[in-house]
Amino acid sequence: MSLATPPVTTLRINGERLWQSLMTLAQIGATPKGGVARLALTDLDRQGRDLVVSWARELGMSVTVDRIGNIFMRRAGRNNALPPVMTGSHIDTQPTGGKFDGNYGVLAGLEVVRTLNDHGIETEAPIEVVVWTNEEGSRFVPVMMGSGVFAQAFTLEHAYAATDTQGRTVRQELEAIGYLGDEEPGRHPIGSYFEAHIEQGPVLEDAGITIGVVQGVLGQRWFDCVVHGMEAHAGPTPMELRKDALQVATHLMQEVVAIAHRHAPHGRGTVGMVHVHPNSRNVIPGRVMFSIDFRNHTDASVEAMAQEIREQARALSLRTGLKIDLDLVVSFTAQQFHPECVQAVRDAAITLGLSHMPVVSGAGHDAVYAAKLAPTAMIFIPCKDGISHNEIEDALPEHISAGANVLLQAMLSRSGA
Amino acid sequence: MSLATPPVTTLRINGERLWQSLMTLAQIGATPKGGVARLALTDLDRQGRDLVVSWARELGMSVTVDRIGNIFMRRAGRNNALPPVMTGSHIDTQPTGGKFDGNYGVLAGLEVVRTLNDHGIETEAPIEVVVWTNEEGSRFVPVMMGSGVFAQAFTLEHAYAATDTQGRTVRQELEAIGYLGDEEPGRHPIGSYFEAHIEQGPVLEDAGITIGVVQGVLGQRWFDCVVHGMEAHAGPTPMELRKDALQVATHLMQEVVAIAHRHAPHGRGTVGMVHVHPNSRNVIPGRVMFSIDFRNHTDASVEAMAQEIREQARALSLRTGLKIDLDLVVSFTAQQFHPECVQAVRDAAITLGLSHMPVVSGAGHDAVYAAKLAPTAMIFIPCKDGISHNEIEDALPEHISAGANVLLQAMLSRSGA
Repeated sequence: MSLATPPVTTLRINGERLWQSLMTLAQIGATPKGGVARLALTDLDRQGRDLVVSWARELGMSVTVDRIGNIFMRRAGRNNALPPVMTGSHIDTQPTGGKFDGNYGVLAGLEVVRTLNDHGIETEAPIEVVVWTNEEGSRFVPVMMGSGVFAQAFTLEHAYAATDTQGRTVRQELEAIGYLGDEEPGRHPIGSYFEAHIEQGPVLEDAGITIGVVQGVLGQRWFDCVVHGMEAHAGPTPMELRKDALQVATHLMQEVVAIAHRHAPHGRGTVGMVHVHPNSRNVIPGRVMFSIDFRNHTDASVEAMAQEIREQARALSLRTGLKIDLDLVVSFTAQQFHPECVQAVRDAAITLGLSHMPVVSGAGHDAVYAAKLAPTAMIFIPCKDGISHNEIEDALPEHISAGANVLLQAMLSRSGA
Repeated sequence: MSLATPPVTTLRINGERLWQSLMTLAQIGATPKGGVARLALTDLDRQGRDLVVSWARELGMSVTVDRIGNIFMRRAGRNNALPPVMTGSHIDTQPTGGKFDGNYGVLAGLEVVRTLNDHGIETEAPIEVVVWTNEEGSRFVPVMMGSGVFAQAFTLEHAYAATDTQGRTVRQELEAIGYLGDEEPGRHPIGSYFEAHIEQGPVLEDAGITIGVVQGVLGQRWFDCVVHGMEAHAGPTPMELRKDALQVATHLMQEVVAIAHRHAPHGRGTVGMVHVHPNSRNVIPGRVMFSIDFRNHTDASVEAMAQEIREQARALSLRTGLKIDLDLVVSFTAQQFHPECVQAVRDAAITLGLSHMPVVSGAGHDAVYAAKLAPTAMIFIPCKDGISHNEIEDALPEHISAGANVLLQAMLSRSGA
């Protein structure tokens, strides 16, 4: 930075331009209700990728694609031997998704580059913006596929073999949309990683705060629980002779929530899915299956929650004589973000005079996998009513701008501007 | 009765013959799993009716059919001006029904007539065996249609207009199977009415008792309950900011059962059906609909149960801020049976040396409507594991015989043999 230019801390992104880019990208797969349906590796995904890549090229960035379709868009630094300061997210959406989830993280990254270009700012390390493949997992599982392969959470072959409901594989579809690259996933160095994202929850809005300084991502334990009773007629069967699977199941469902409250403030317990058999008004349920989703900020605390429900289920089965199966189906470790990157986000909010608070991310993000490889942090901004994965997902332009400015300052602080 | 013949209390039905008639009728609509699928007013129902009517004619009975298809099979008495002592039930089944539900009551009636014929016993009043139309309500609602029209619980026109899923009406189908009779429903006099039936519950089997002396039929109140919350992501939404419809709903579901226990011994509370929206593992439920089925032996007691859940729902809604809709969808009054008929059943069991106990019927039966018109009682026998409305429904030949002998003696005691 020459002495004649003002300090980079006075740099600001162009909020109007960023907003327009979000609205333009949202036209690809736009739904009548104002949302976006752009599922991973569809032709709409290709159109979205092509648009983003064309914008990157207009900004003078070089573009590489790896074998799982992750796109790396690079703005050279003064010292290109340094690993890049990277940002990004994903542009695939849920079937009834919104305009901001993922897209915001990618386009905020491009807006950072545009801003640096506008002011002729050079950084010591290169800046990169990444588009990770298939974060949502709506069409192909596992979720966070591109970043997961990149971080070797699972193999490329495993990801390639995933099929959609039509039987088409990830590999076929990567080829079909022209994003089967040749770079080996994970070979791409990362110096630091930042990801800006809408919160997808109600905490910031409820607190009236603009910037969430994300400390880490909650660990998760998901269970399938099945209670086996005996179906019988509601009329002729006295209470004391019943083996009512739902009565036992609802007791456990209440306990899931009670456990979460006992593990405040970060403990979360949700029963989202319930299947009752035979599900008939006047038949005592013979079998009830339900899901349990536990989350907490450390692995020890989420494991403690899991242990409590296991003990409750065991005791309840003994007391009632009904068989209860409790199977762990998903386990994600908690991920703390890097103190220096978290500090860079906090400092940026302070520099910018933005209200901010420490938050945890209850949902998984590509940043969780990036954090396995490099110092990482995330920036959250409020979204309307905490709603996401929904066509009515919305965010305020002032928050969109604020988050991108935090991203700009945090990236500059780590890239040696 | 001449002095030369033994007293009628020594008469016994032919258990083997009754069992064979049950097995023969069960071949019409037999399912591979050993059950019966003979839905009301289908051609299979016609075949079943034709078989039963042919048996009645072989026994010298006269047969009339009313405009809702109820079949009255009559064995003349010495004084045919007296109203008949009637018995019977239905021969339509659930889609996956059993061999005994309904069929037992009809064929036990014919076996009573066969036994009287075998021994040349004349009764003062005529004896009639009735087949009521569409008791199950699987194909056409309302349930207990034939006896309901007969007792003027609803009109003939209402019943005629009922349609199945193919759009065919009851009237069309009655005509198609040749059972649209010309007798005006309800014009047929009844002196006393008895109905033998499998218990369809576990009480007798659990107690090791052969004969249930049915005191009456429980009153019912059915509700639809809908809890309105706010769907949100399970991860990003802290416990204190949730509007979890399922958490509130499961609290009420527990209360349904607790209320029934507080109204022992006859109070019954069942949640049989649950629909969770959107029913996704990691989404806090935004809306939960569930059914409530309350039963008790008096109208006052079942109404008290209904009132308790209304108050609980109101208080819970106030406490949680979630809207709770509670709509009464079905209401049946409790029906006490006639003391003299109940006594006749008890006396018969005593005469026959059979173990017996007073029971209530939790389910509705044609006898409930008959009881509006004439002194009525029911005889229950155990069924295996209390299971009914199921292809594995089963009953022991010795119980089948015992119940029919009780029916014989009870009918004789009321018919002036």
